[in-house]
Amino acid sequence: MTAPVPQTHPYGFAISDKIKHEVHKQDVWSIFSPAGGYVPKDSINLGQGFMNWGPPKYVQEAAQEAIATVDANHYSVPKGRLRLRSALAKHYSPSFKREIDPNTEIVVTSGANEGIYAFEAAFLQPGDEVIMFEPFFDQYIANTTFNGGVPVYVALHPPANASTSVVQSSEWKLDINELRAAITSKTKIIFLNTPHNPIGKVFDIDELREIGKVAEEFDLIIMADEVYDCLTYGREHVRISTLDDLWKRTITIGSAGKSFSATGWRVGWAIGPQNLIHPTLAATTRIVFCTNSPLQEATAAGFEKAAEHNFFAKQVEEYVERRAVFTAELDKVGLPYTFPDGGYFVLVQNRSIKIPKDFVVPDMIKNRPYDFKVSWFIAQTAGVVAIPPSDFYSPGHASIGESFTRFAFCKDLNTLRAAGERLLKLKPFIVK
Amino acid sequence: MTAPVPQTHPYGFAISDKIKHEVHKQDVWSIFSPAGGYVPKDSINLGQGFMNWGPPKYVQEAAQEAIATVDANHYSVPKGRLRLRSALAKHYSPSFKREIDPNTEIVVTSGANEGIYAFEAAFLQPGDEVIMFEPFFDQYIANTTFNGGVPVYVALHPPANASTSVVQSSEWKLDINELRAAITSKTKIIFLNTPHNPIGKVFDIDELREIGKVAEEFDLIIMADEVYDCLTYGREHVRISTLDDLWKRTITIGSAGKSFSATGWRVGWAIGPQNLIHPTLAATTRIVFCTNSPLQEATAAGFEKAAEHNFFAKQVEEYVERRAVFTAELDKVGLPYTFPDGGYFVLVQNRSIKIPKDFVVPDMIKNRPYDFKVSWFIAQTAGVVAIPPSDFYSPGHASIGESFTRFAFCKDLNTLRAAGERLLKLKPFIVK
Repeated sequence: MTAPVPQTHPYGFAISDKIKHEVHKQDVWSIFSPAGGYVPKDSINLGQGFMNWGPPKYVQEAAQEAIATVDANHYSVPKGRLRLRSALAKHYSPSFKREIDPNTEIVVTSGANEGIYAFEAAFLQPGDEVIMFEPFFDQYIANTTFNGGVPVYVALHPPANASTSVVQSSEWKLDINELRAAITSKTKIIFLNTPHNPIGKVFDIDELREIGKVAEEFDLIIMADEVYDCLTYGREHVRISTLDDLWKRTITIGSAGKSFSATGWRVGWAIGPQNLIHPTLAATTRIVFCTNSPLQEATAAGFEKAAEHNFFAKQVEEYVERRAVFTAELDKVGLPYTFPDGGYFVLVQNRSIKIPKDFVVPDMIKNRPYDFKVSWFIAQTAGVVAIPPSDFYSPGHASIGESFTRFAFCKDLNTLRAAGERLLKLKPFIVK
Repeated sequence: MTAPVPQTHPYGFAISDKIKHEVHKQDVWSIFSPAGGYVPKDSINLGQGFMNWGPPKYVQEAAQEAIATVDANHYSVPKGRLRLRSALAKHYSPSFKREIDPNTEIVVTSGANEGIYAFEAAFLQPGDEVIMFEPFFDQYIANTTFNGGVPVYVALHPPANASTSVVQSSEWKLDINELRAAITSKTKIIFLNTPHNPIGKVFDIDELREIGKVAEEFDLIIMADEVYDCLTYGREHVRISTLDDLWKRTITIGSAGKSFSATGWRVGWAIGPQNLIHPTLAATTRIVFCTNSPLQEATAAGFEKAAEHNFFAKQVEEYVERRAVFTAELDKVGLPYTFPDGGYFVLVQNRSIKIPKDFVVPDMIKNRPYDFKVSWFIAQTAGVVAIPPSDFYSPGHASIGESFTRFAFCKDLNTLRAAGERLLKLKPFIVK
């Protein structure tokens, strides 16, 4: 465990208020990673969501070709390379049901995360409220608070039988009245993540319309985090920006990392009307200036050549198989879970795992919620690392998150089968 | 020229105060670039500072090798890849005169710009003042104001004969009393850029000690932007962090783009004591999560193999030749300039160029300072694009900047010679 750093260092430099919540925390990603040195080093890592394969060969080759040029090793214009913006416009226009203008309606960002950050830098005034549905992607909080915003939480509710049975991700529901009740005169933005990490829920058209109506009624911006848009399984991904008049108030976030199995490329984008994109561009220009050039070129090639390789359809097929294999393993173990319709995570219900009374958890876990303890128990007992999701909840709703552990299935089939094999060691501790 | 975007868009979304200064401005980089569509397309571009060659072949190959792996296409730990941090520690320890700890004293950032941004996010409270010397790198302003800081300006003074003669960059001086006078109870940070963009000044040990003393006296942090540290010509680059007790209060910023001719890679780093690095890491983790992985690997290779290729010494030799060739061209034209000791810019005195009375400048230039007009005149008359530096000054001191135009000489010798040839067209307009 990293030694705690004093808020004021010996030479008197106070840190900013916004970073005070960040510097002391032992983050969940460092604890629950075999590389972190806490869980067994030979654990199978189903924690952080990255693939154990690389991008498609033709995309790798395009990156290598870009590296061999002069131009693609130098600055891009801040809005992103024309080739990538053109490829994005061509790829996304059909599913956005409009001709996207690559010059005014797209900005390339240094990963989806920095895109959300820049958007908030451009639009939040101190005290503006941002509504996010729980569980949320944990970066949302600091993206918001660093820019003076105040997160406001609305929980997605699992079905009542989620603790005993396999349930569908579509059964997790937003209570639209809870959303309405959360709105104040300071509300500025609604964050919508679909397909949803970690539930795997793909919001349906009726749910999206309901959210959209609230946004219209209170004149809110919708930040649609759709980084898993190409990963839905047998359920259509509907873009909220295509419904009714919502394009005008929606900025949609995408990611090369998720689309092409290249989470370390840090290439993302935002798509929306000029009045949302232009200020976001002005912000990202000052935060990072531009996004790395060679991997923008490679991402462009990925979109340009996706059709000839039938890439996205094949990728979905492969994920459907991974989902089938991993959930079958969970069935063998006898753990209930939420069956995901999109993305690459499975929320496993952990309340039926009874941790023996004499099992010792380390100090850094001791005062954390139950899901930290059970995830630690799983790692130590079965040698499989997964993520406790209570960090994706506000303290008021963490009790919902405590009952789950998040497993990533963006791993090859052998790894998923081996993880299932190991998880069988939990069987003696499962009480029905 | 981009159509102006209303601050409040038709659907009522106000933008943040911090972005209001950014969204309307026609930035200097877009006007003075052949790609921008304003200056003649066939201009020779000595504007923005990027090389017209790529990184060394063995660095490109290392990038290509990284792309061919699985691991180097996925997330890095937020503090940066171990291989890069190790290579940085090894490369920098001698010139920092201490053993740099790659685990606690280095953080990799998404370019030097994002490193400065993250550092300020970590340390600035609203209203904290940041002192910057003019001319400054223009990104400093928004890096500061976005994080609630207030820039405070202290001008570097050119020698009196700079308008008529070739002068040395070392003759540009900081008045230490002006620095002292600028300090208030809100002062938190001094920005120091050495080697300096655009003057080319390499601060000497006495100047650095003077600045350091002020920092000690008022307990300030020094942000040493040393991105041109490997580009000094016949003058030693002294790191302020190596003087007296200043390591404790100095964060030093570096850049792969400047070191290896890869401005589009967006790989930078910050080096300093743990108490400055740890909060900066916490901030960058939330702003970008991590920096792109494959180009971190390639940058590591660059440092690992630099010695065997005698890379940095050879690079300096090449820049010395470029500087000699380009300043000789300026001599032929008869324009006085500041002879740079580091970096790759030359500030040319432009007051002797008399723009004909009937020469028409476009509306976007009309209300800008003199250097915009003369830089426009140079581009139209000679077909050479250079940057007016008054944007690198606060309004109070812009009159100093107006007398100069910045030329980048990070271009091959033929380009520099061709630019000199074209600049001869200015001769009839030069009045002694």
